[in-house]
Amino acid sequence: MAEVIDQGLLEYLESFLTESRRTRIQEILKWRTRWITLVLEDLVDPHNASACLRSAEACGLQDVHIIENRHPFQVKTGVSMGSAHWLSINRHTALDSANQNGNRSAEFEATTHCYDELKARGYTILATSPHESSISLPDVDLNQPLAIVFGSEKDGISPVARQKADYALRIPMYGFTESFNISVSAAITLYDLTGRLRRSSRKWQLSDEEKQELSLQWARHSLKRSDLLEQYYRNKGMDS
Amino acid sequence: MAEVIDQGLLEYLESFLTESRRTRIQEILKWRTRWITLVLEDLVDPHNASACLRSAEACGLQDVHIIENRHPFQVKTGVSMGSAHWLSINRHTALDSANQNGNRSAEFEATTHCYDELKARGYTILATSPHESSISLPDVDLNQPLAIVFGSEKDGISPVARQKADYALRIPMYGFTESFNISVSAAITLYDLTGRLRRSSRKWQLSDEEKQELSLQWARHSLKRSDLLEQYYRNKGMDS
Repeated sequence: MAEVIDQGLLEYLESFLTESRRTRIQEILKWRTRWITLVLEDLVDPHNASACLRSAEACGLQDVHIIENRHPFQVKTGVSMGSAHWLSINRHTALDSANQNGNRSAEFEATTHCYDELKARGYTILATSPHESSISLPDVDLNQPLAIVFGSEKDGISPVARQKADYALRIPMYGFTESFNISVSAAITLYDLTGRLRRSSRKWQLSDEEKQELSLQWARHSLKRSDLLEQYYRNKGMDS
Repeated sequence: MAEVIDQGLLEYLESFLTESRRTRIQEILKWRTRWITLVLEDLVDPHNASACLRSAEACGLQDVHIIENRHPFQVKTGVSMGSAHWLSINRHTALDSANQNGNRSAEFEATTHCYDELKARGYTILATSPHESSISLPDVDLNQPLAIVFGSEKDGISPVARQKADYALRIPMYGFTESFNISVSAAITLYDLTGRLRRSSRKWQLSDEEKQELSLQWARHSLKRSDLLEQYYRNKGMDS
């Protein structure tokens, strides 16, 4: 749910940012998109997970969905380079309920939860699979918002993730090697799709409200102890 | 130097391959190119090195150049997925001479050696650097053969590799993250350039001689104990 932005608070916090940081935030917001979103299902290797977040952020994505049916999502900070702080990370987990019940009430329920949410928001879901495919990366159409799903390094995407997806996506390959590493697949796919998206006439940018909301979030993250500044701002408001 | 192909030997070895392997080799040869080549300078992490080889092979490159000024090149088989067997790996090393002399006779001499060879073969050299750039990936022109250089994870490419390159190449980035992981950079760059190359009218394919030479090499690699088969073939020739 979107936070109602207190314009005064935003301006107050921004006054503590350096000029170059303010400019950089505005520049990055211009390129930010929710038209494409990344979905990571049960990644095991924190190195891969982190590289995926880093690539998503660098390509201008705002939203990443994390699905945890069997494996808790873990990030390796040296690899992610802090990219997670600038993203909106949506966690869909079945781990807590599985632990409480002692067993899984529904197989891959976190995947179903995530897909339902994405479909309700109008996303077309493309699940990546090197083995079977219904669409090749160069043929992907950018007319609908796209969610791209990558699965675990060992087993690939789950049966549920594959069956409930709209397409099985494949990166064309021309050698003996039959698959790319997960973080490589994610980077190639996101670089290709976001490049084509930016060159298109589609309205892929964030709304002004979304930009304001992120400005506040990023200003908070850019400042040391923004919580104290915020408290001071609110107290000042109550005094007057 | 190209091996003079014994056509009889090639046909003899091919007769031991399955039909599907023969077809696959012919299919892959159609897409193989030396127009673009990958150069890896002093990579430290075997995981990265292996992922780079795997991406190069999957994108249809034949040649990879390995530069060892300071670090021996090491591959992690689980990550490279055997891709090294199908590539022509050209190793330029200063490690042996450095060890013998007790010091390095010339800084980054392996880099100079590799660059001289590439330039003699007509390659334009693009060194990747996130910090300074003279060309952005989408603007790279495919009219000349291209060698793309990636440097060590920690220090990036060496000063020599940067100064002697024709261009400093940059992948456009749109977020706070200021660089991609090495194996991700290599994959994005190779996927983008080889995709554009295949869609171009340029003559990027291998010559018939090169295809024959690789057919022999790949047939040898596809067979268990091809050395014994080859010995048998040669002895038979001497008998007749």
